[in-house]
Amino acid sequence: MPLLTQARAPLTRPVTVLNEFGERKPIAIPAERDLTIYVDKRELVTLMTLGAHPEWLVLGYLRNQRLVDSVHDIESITVDWDVGAAAVKTRHGIHAIEERTAQRVVTTGCGQGSVFGSLLDHLDRIHLPDQAPLRQSVLYQIVNQIRLQDSVYKAAGSVHGCALFCGGDLSLFVEDVGRHNAVDTIAGWMWLQDPADMQGADKVFYTTGRLTSEMVIKSAQMGVSVVVSRSGTTQMGLEVAERVGLCAIGRATHQRFLCYTHPQRLLWDVALTRPPAPVCP
Amino acid sequence: MPLLTQARAPLTRPVTVLNEFGERKPIAIPAERDLTIYVDKRELVTLMTLGAHPEWLVLGYLRNQRLVDSVHDIESITVDWDVGAAAVKTRHGIHAIEERTAQRVVTTGCGQGSVFGSLLDHLDRIHLPDQAPLRQSVLYQIVNQIRLQDSVYKAAGSVHGCALFCGGDLSLFVEDVGRHNAVDTIAGWMWLQDPADMQGADKVFYTTGRLTSEMVIKSAQMGVSVVVSRSGTTQMGLEVAERVGLCAIGRATHQRFLCYTHPQRLLWDVALTRPPAPVCP
Repeated sequence: MPLLTQARAPLTRPVTVLNEFGERKPIAIPAERDLTIYVDKRELVTLMTLGAHPEWLVLGYLRNQRLVDSVHDIESITVDWDVGAAAVKTRHGIHAIEERTAQRVVTTGCGQGSVFGSLLDHLDRIHLPDQAPLRQSVLYQIVNQIRLQDSVYKAAGSVHGCALFCGGDLSLFVEDVGRHNAVDTIAGWMWLQDPADMQGADKVFYTTGRLTSEMVIKSAQMGVSVVVSRSGTTQMGLEVAERVGLCAIGRATHQRFLCYTHPQRLLWDVALTRPPAPVCP
Repeated sequence: MPLLTQARAPLTRPVTVLNEFGERKPIAIPAERDLTIYVDKRELVTLMTLGAHPEWLVLGYLRNQRLVDSVHDIESITVDWDVGAAAVKTRHGIHAIEERTAQRVVTTGCGQGSVFGSLLDHLDRIHLPDQAPLRQSVLYQIVNQIRLQDSVYKAAGSVHGCALFCGGDLSLFVEDVGRHNAVDTIAGWMWLQDPADMQGADKVFYTTGRLTSEMVIKSAQMGVSVVVSRSGTTQMGLEVAERVGLCAIGRATHQRFLCYTHPQRLLWDVALTRPPAPVCP
């Protein structure tokens, strides 16, 4: 396993603003800082991040950009907020890093919208588990846990949250100014766990953001076959979910949701009652 | 003025989903397509976009990335959705395009998060007009016009909207899957107008998205000194607005708002009455 620092920084910053009455009002805003990733002393990219778990973020970034095949290829990640730098030391270097980071696609997602190389390159290599049905009752547990979760969003707004659930239990909740940072952080964390624990078909990925193609691809790359969003989807997000066999659920609040793709992964086990139709006077 | 095609494509796509009762339900989702920009036959970047005004988007992208100094440097922009390509023909080429597009910063913003070159490079060259006070009553007009605006968002959700206002009148409203595409489209459109019309100090930029540093920088680059958002801000957005002298207003819904920076640009001309305090039983 790689050696990781545990760099910490405040996640919110208090500021004073004026409200609609012209009155001074103290509020909190999300902190945001730039983190430049150096791989074997070569500058790779600068990310803007809340900085809750920068080492997992860097690890997940390298994973999701498919620059590193295995967590064991990484010797150490050293984050120093004083200089805004993450120094990655690999065991054997990254093959052809120059060429592999040359092509640029600017995508829809918030934040880390730049995926090196072709977005859909590895799509056909992804095989999600056939089974993995999610019960509607567990989906409601998930939505409710997110609702009750203490968060930077509740304190300061303007951040995206992502979470990984195993069988309805929250494994990790991450927020960031860009939601791609949040999903990359989860991907990095997953690489540090026992692989056997991460193979299960009962994983559900939750995001407050839209289900864009990148979010769907990143979830599928992590072996997760169900994604749940408070928000909606876009055409490419839907197409990619359809193609990789991922069940995409959006507009999930309280008891409501829409199942966009692969409904066979969802088990409607809750007998919902409709509110009575309004009676016209 | 450059020669522009007027490529069009549907902005939403009808799909059938299942709701929480397991019932089939027809909905619309935002369309999303990739547009690869070629400058003088050299591939520059691929954007994911709703595609409402691709020619203005490409023009604004080149402007906001500071790859082109003047609209007169562009001879033509030809968009062909059949191949997802935008061919840009310049009059004299773009000087040192290789070097200028080499550095990569992945930022917080949605969508077009990749700004070539240093994000803050040109910040100190920006001089916003000293005056330009926005009346609170005009701010409320702006918020109300956005509320009433017909939109892809109302039909399909999952898009960001941006708008340019002149003295409280809506000049242009643009939506896109990434809000940076929307602001770039406005920047492109502004370049095509009479420069005298665009110099006025009465411009207000509205966005449904967060006021991140990039949104603030792009607004300031367009000479706009007041930005209004339905959402909030982040630390770097606030710092940049403070530095360039831009009045950043967030959480603007109905009569409520927060003024984050440079409140001298805002004129509190509305006598708001507070709801009476609740009486304890």
